[in-house]
Amino acid sequence: MSQTNFSSRDLRNALSSFATGVTIVTSREDDGSPVGMTASSFNSVSMEPPLVLWSVTKTAHSAEIFKSAKHFNVHVLASDQTDLSNAFAKSGADKFSGVEYKTNDHGIPILPYAAARFECSTWAVYEGGDHWIIVGEVQAIERQPTEPLVFSGGAYATAASLRPASPDPEEAAKDQSHVDGLLIYNLSRAYRQLADTFHATVRESGLSIREWRVLASLHGETPRTLNELTTRTFINPRGLMELLANMREAGLCIIEGSGDDTRYSGTEKGNEQVERLFALSGKQEQAAVGDDEKRDQLLDLLQLVVRNTHD
Amino acid sequence: MSQTNFSSRDLRNALSSFATGVTIVTSREDDGSPVGMTASSFNSVSMEPPLVLWSVTKTAHSAEIFKSAKHFNVHVLASDQTDLSNAFAKSGADKFSGVEYKTNDHGIPILPYAAARFECSTWAVYEGGDHWIIVGEVQAIERQPTEPLVFSGGAYATAASLRPASPDPEEAAKDQSHVDGLLIYNLSRAYRQLADTFHATVRESGLSIREWRVLASLHGETPRTLNELTTRTFINPRGLMELLANMREAGLCIIEGSGDDTRYSGTEKGNEQVERLFALSGKQEQAAVGDDEKRDQLLDLLQLVVRNTHD
Repeated sequence: MSQTNFSSRDLRNALSSFATGVTIVTSREDDGSPVGMTASSFNSVSMEPPLVLWSVTKTAHSAEIFKSAKHFNVHVLASDQTDLSNAFAKSGADKFSGVEYKTNDHGIPILPYAAARFECSTWAVYEGGDHWIIVGEVQAIERQPTEPLVFSGGAYATAASLRPASPDPEEAAKDQSHVDGLLIYNLSRAYRQLADTFHATVRESGLSIREWRVLASLHGETPRTLNELTTRTFINPRGLMELLANMREAGLCIIEGSGDDTRYSGTEKGNEQVERLFALSGKQEQAAVGDDEKRDQLLDLLQLVVRNTHD
Repeated sequence: MSQTNFSSRDLRNALSSFATGVTIVTSREDDGSPVGMTASSFNSVSMEPPLVLWSVTKTAHSAEIFKSAKHFNVHVLASDQTDLSNAFAKSGADKFSGVEYKTNDHGIPILPYAAARFECSTWAVYEGGDHWIIVGEVQAIERQPTEPLVFSGGAYATAASLRPASPDPEEAAKDQSHVDGLLIYNLSRAYRQLADTFHATVRESGLSIREWRVLASLHGETPRTLNELTTRTFINPRGLMELLANMREAGLCIIEGSGDDTRYSGTEKGNEQVERLFALSGKQEQAAVGDDEKRDQLLDLLQLVVRNTHD
């Protein structure tokens, strides 16, 4: 059913279905001071001329700087750059302190280790409601061989390959390619198929995946700090604070204290939801593997891989 | 190193680092005939008023229709809608034949089963080089509890949760949450960490991940048709044809025949690269699990999960 009377929370939730990468856009003030902000509103526009766009909220500290800047650089972040993304998503703070960066010929900051970089000259600035739409002509590009960061459902992620679902076993035996025998492809498929089932269960219970992650992190040893929750849920601090306020409204979590001393814990209602979903998840996992013994064996092997490949 | 003298292929490759969702945008001609096209250039713009944008190539069959349309609907596709995405990415064909759809009050097609839908009135159309940038004001939204489709590195994917990397084992024992014992989170982490390593190896060999997938699919039983490759690589037909032409230039694949009879196979050089990468992958997997016996055990259990959760 279409919803014509929607809140900005409803809109944000619907928009979060559309996955994006995460970028940091940088420029400089007239005096040369660097400015930068995290943006997921980036996209490509044109090949000839090469154009890209992003949008900046008009109330942002640096909105006027970006609007009048002649040049800016867009950095597409790699999957290990969530801390940088969080740092540049904060308003006001000195985002460049402690960040090693160079500048290009136009004095625009270049952040290292991004998955890709687009050095742009401003081509047009368009009206976009509470945002400015900034279109840049790409002057230079750079790519790094790293896994890009994905933002989906309001949380950080990476892209997992979609592979054709396991065909009929007899067909598979006739046409066994090397790829089907690789661990990573089987990990990816097993993850996707199990996650599809479990995530549908979570959503049917009336929770978003983000809310489930927060509730699961608030279960057990609590109360927790915002920092602990950021680390455990991979949701950025700003999104997390908004989410937690909404979850308090819904009677799912308790917020105590203020400022840096704020502590979060689950309500009885929230904890009951988590326990019910854990139980359902356990059943789904058992059905997927066959029995408890095999499930534990698989879990042990996966944890071994996680430990051995962690750098 | 920045590249200031880049081809449109270089630009496309760099842009493919930025993940997006996949949408189908629909509208209608004056006579009521439905039009629709696949677009990944969608993004949110403004909350107040609620604005979104996408861009349409000026040479598209339906560009003038979208440019002058008063209303359009954006459908954010779910992960099981790759066939629909491919169908609406073709030019010319009768895309709506065989597709069940309704229309809203403005006569604009509504496609079922999307992860989210935004029913929009056209708010502005901006100049964007070889594209029009179309800004819509959202009039109605709808969400479905399904996993959204992701487009990353030029191929279809889903989002895999980023979870904090495995902490120091002693810390983990003290702070063992339920989530750490779920199969899906361990599958996701094991996948991500192994894939990060292997994908870096692929990129260091000079191949993109897409090229690797195509080469791996051309290894063994060949020649293959475009359809077979689309199914095996999860790259859309248009992107795949462009990629295969580039790979032929690079001496990696052979293209024989034409039209529907076109067949693709790997060159000796391409096959050698695949075999070298398979060998490296085998070593990485062995290092990750410890020994061959455990690797085979893990593979068996994963394939069991894949079979049991396949619908």
